[in-house]
Amino acid sequence: MRIAELSAQSGTSIPTIKYYLREGLLPPGAATGRNQADYGEEHVRRLRLVRALIDVGGVPVATVREVLAAVDEPDLPSHKLLGVAHCLVPASTRRDPDDPAWRAARAEVDAIVAERGWWVHEEAPARDAAADAIAALRALGQDDLLANLPVWTDAAERVAAAEVTTVIARGGPADMVEAVVTGTVLGEAVLNALRRLAQEATSARLLGATPD
Amino acid sequence: MRIAELSAQSGTSIPTIKYYLREGLLPPGAATGRNQADYGEEHVRRLRLVRALIDVGGVPVATVREVLAAVDEPDLPSHKLLGVAHCLVPASTRRDPDDPAWRAARAEVDAIVAERGWWVHEEAPARDAAADAIAALRALGQDDLLANLPVWTDAAERVAAAEVTTVIARGGPADMVEAVVTGTVLGEAVLNALRRLAQEATSARLLGATPD
Repeated sequence: MRIAELSAQSGTSIPTIKYYLREGLLPPGAATGRNQADYGEEHVRRLRLVRALIDVGGVPVATVREVLAAVDEPDLPSHKLLGVAHCLVPASTRRDPDDPAWRAARAEVDAIVAERGWWVHEEAPARDAAADAIAALRALGQDDLLANLPVWTDAAERVAAAEVTTVIARGGPADMVEAVVTGTVLGEAVLNALRRLAQEATSARLLGATPD
Repeated sequence: MRIAELSAQSGTSIPTIKYYLREGLLPPGAATGRNQADYGEEHVRRLRLVRALIDVGGVPVATVREVLAAVDEPDLPSHKLLGVAHCLVPASTRRDPDDPAWRAARAEVDAIVAERGWWVHEEAPARDAAADAIAALRALGQDDLLANLPVWTDAAERVAAAEVTTVIARGGPADMVEAVVTGTVLGEAVLNALRRLAQEATSARLLGATPD
């Protein structure tokens, strides 16, 4: 199909498609003329994935490029699958590994991982991301909120068990990688939105408020 | 204290502090001279909150301004507390309410809310945010991941119950608002990071991989 049809089928404007092509988020079509190329179903599919990650998941363009490179690697061994999701952990700009408060928070995360018997890479970016947020909560004097750590950990464990089982049930490595990427980003978006809704509902119930 | 000390105490550079002052994220200090102002403990505290929201939570500056306006409202009734957190739901740029697929996803969210007996505002932005992500998962043909909706909903319900109970235990409205803001944003960051760690651990366990 021509770029105009690709645009119509994917609901993405032609300038945006051209931007994704330049940025390497979309592989080039087969050249059919000096200024023309032919696109296929795989381009429609890839465009949907890129839009979902950027628009719904809020993933930065550079990160999407990195993730797609991993998705396109043909010989990715199964156990490396989750490694793809590592790129998706947002980097904090605040982290100071020499700060004793941050080191204490990171030790707290490591203790949770050990206590649960989780087998997690020592350098997993999510360890630092959790430490960032815990350190920030402590610095703000919101220690009572950290009493919820076991509840958050339980929830994370249950959700992850269900999600990873779904991914593995897919069988084929290519499908599994796509499930990891979309499940990590979009699953997180669903879970976070449901958490906000449940918070509003619990608050209304406990405070006896009426929605207006 | 002078701005230099405020900078040292909060670990925030003077140009950044001046930027926050210009953007209205930080109230002005008491003027002590033509080009000098005096800052207090409340400025240190506010700066920590702003940095945590922006750096760890990834909240845009404009949203932080909106949230702080709500935090500073003296007569906010208790049941409006959670309304503050509404501003914190990231807006999707992709939403198309006329798209039948999006409407179906939104109906699915409304059905979950009704089924659970959640008392949630009809216009709650989180309903749309959940619908965005569900619609994106369907468009990508990742329907099997949506089989996890009940698991996500259970997790959201449990986590929210614990969180809201902590917030209400605080008693004072000002403290409660701060707990809502930090708990929503930073609690989400902790939960999401723990979910990534649990995914990695579950994946290693089920696929029999060794971390390297």
